[in-house]
Amino acid sequence: MLGKLNHVAIACSDLDKTAKFYRDLGVKVSETVPLPEHGVYTVFVNFGNTKIELLKPYGDKSPIEGFLKKNKDGGIHHVCIEVPKIEEAMKKVKEMGVRTLTETTKIGAHGKPVVFLHPKDCGGVLVELEQE
Amino acid sequence: MLGKLNHVAIACSDLDKTAKFYRDLGVKVSETVPLPEHGVYTVFVNFGNTKIELLKPYGDKSPIEGFLKKNKDGGIHHVCIEVPKIEEAMKKVKEMGVRTLTETTKIGAHGKPVVFLHPKDCGGVLVELEQE
Repeated sequence: MLGKLNHVAIACSDLDKTAKFYRDLGVKVSETVPLPEHGVYTVFVNFGNTKIELLKPYGDKSPIEGFLKKNKDGGIHHVCIEVPKIEEAMKKVKEMGVRTLTETTKIGAHGKPVVFLHPKDCGGVLVELEQE
Repeated sequence: MLGKLNHVAIACSDLDKTAKFYRDLGVKVSETVPLPEHGVYTVFVNFGNTKIELLKPYGDKSPIEGFLKKNKDGGIHHVCIEVPKIEEAMKKVKEMGVRTLTETTKIGAHGKPVVFLHPKDCGGVLVELEQE
């Protein structure tokens, strides 16, 4: 049902500084990509086996604004897990009593359908499912 | 300098429930392993490319006790990144002005030398470096 761990997302108070931290340690770090439709700027830190996705707010209604108010230094925002068939995965999690944050999938940062699961139903962790 | 992302550690308020969540979704989940010398019980959730390590406190002086007081539902505690040479990595991070939580390495949950970096110097994220 679940596939690989696609990425760990970190909300940053200082995106450039955190990107520099990983770059200085020799990790492959992408340029900053603005994603206005998602309300974030993103930087990908590629470890080969998986990625860290660094995020900073874009515009006034960023989905990570509230998180950064609570976590002023930044912090780990969510984990993203790949699924072969996202509609089947949504059906399965609902049967398990796990709530999704939206009734339908949205198109995520990688151009693929995604859905977020309620942290209260996933051990306190915001989990994103992404179509492989 | 940095290698693969070895694992994402999640501190759990209900370890069995969170382990069941991943098991029910078809992920390979280990038995619960007590690590008295680290003050935690661990469960490994293996995604193939990387792992989630579920933690719950063991004994009175668990290092995740404070985290769970602040995050009552549980949450993502740290990320662990492999390094080919941990002593060189410690020297490098110190040159970068990044503090380590201990002056020397300790033997971690996998029997290998590890050191933790100060979250304030790593974008708000507790980062564990582990010898490959």
